[in-house]
Amino acid sequence: MSSYQDKKENLKTRLKRIEGQVRGLHKMVDEEKYCVDVLTQINAVKGALNKVGMEVLESHTKGCVTNAIKEEEKEDEIINELMDVVFKFTNK
Amino acid sequence: MSSYQDKKENLKTRLKRIEGQVRGLHKMVDEEKYCVDVLTQINAVKGALNKVGMEVLESHTKGCVTNAIKEEEKEDEIINELMDVVFKFTNK
Amino acid sequence: MSSYQDKKENLKTRLKRIEGQVRGLHKMVDEEKYCVDVLTQINAVKGALNKVGMEVLESHTKGCVTNAIKEEEKEDEIINELMDVVFKFTNK
Amino acid sequence: MSSYQDKKENLKTRLKRIEGQVRGLHKMVDEEKYCVDVLTQINAVKGALNKVGMEVLESHTKGCVTNAIKEEEKEDEIINELMDVVFKFTNK
Repeated sequence: MSSYQDKKENLKTRLKRIEGQVRGLHKMVDEEKYCVDVLTQINAVKGALNKVGMEVLESHTKGCVTNAIKEEEKEDEIINELMDVVFKFTNK
Repeated sequence: MSSYQDKKENLKTRLKRIEGQVRGLHKMVDEEKYCVDVLTQINAVKGALNKVGMEVLESHTKGCVTNAIKEEEKEDEIINELMDVVFKFTNK
Repeated sequence: MSSYQDKKENLKTRLKRIEGQVRGLHKMVDEEKYCVDVLTQINAVKGALNKVGMEVLESHTKGCVTNAIKEEEKEDEIINELMDVVFKFTNK
Repeated sequence: MSSYQDKKENLKTRLKRIEGQVRGLHKMVDEEKYCVDVLTQINAVKGALNKVGMEVLESHTKGCVTNAIKEEEKEDEIINELMDVVFKFTNK
């Protein structure tokens, strides 16, 4: 059901790093660091999340979506779902 | 230097929750959950980060930026810095 | 080569409307309307463009991408291209 | 009421160009150009609109917002309005 197995360890490493970045943000706020530095760090986390998201999206398209199309099974459903998630991605 | 002191505890609570959400993402990937569910969760984290960012941005504008303007000290510098961070925010 | 033929007239109507919105923006600036009203209108145009983009993206995925996958022709190439354009979309 | 007077001609020139870009998009759709080329062009228009938006935002902050703060008149109101428009900007 998941298409990202071959990247799993890489994704987990990235998410661990992102978790560390969020913990770093918590520390920055606790230490009352300069607002703009906090905002810059938030942007860095968003950028890192976007990259993880794009990896998952690529795997999903090359895996689940491609398979659904090849097997002509729930093609439209899976593409609509893909469009929906891309649209939400574009708006966050 | 930081303008968000009065929201500090609230921001820390939110960041703790976001840290938990990222840990949840890690678990989802580890358990090979469905790609679109992972993507939906990534979007949720981005949304939560955006909200924290907007809180910090508001505090910064009402605090640091307002003070710089009132004291006519490095006004342009601080507004350019603000614009820069908003622009980066818009592009992540 | 284009997958949006069946929506062509609808897309053209929307783009005509967007053109009108941009012309409206030009008029607003010429008449020195309030900054925030100009910004709100810019956001409206971006929102309308996003919707057109999502329509084209959906057609593209259901058309060109689906065909490439079914015919097993340049599958990876067309999915990489898709990911690339989605990524750029996410960052504008 | 508007803070962008000194950039007015520049903004109008840019908006004229954006109007031309949208007309170009209309032509591309009419000629059934390749989907990804249409999407790339939509991204270009969004990028150009973002730049106009950032210019207006900068003028607004250096003008209207700064004045409201200096004159201590409706400060909070104008900053809340600013945050609101920035937030919408971030989500389109």
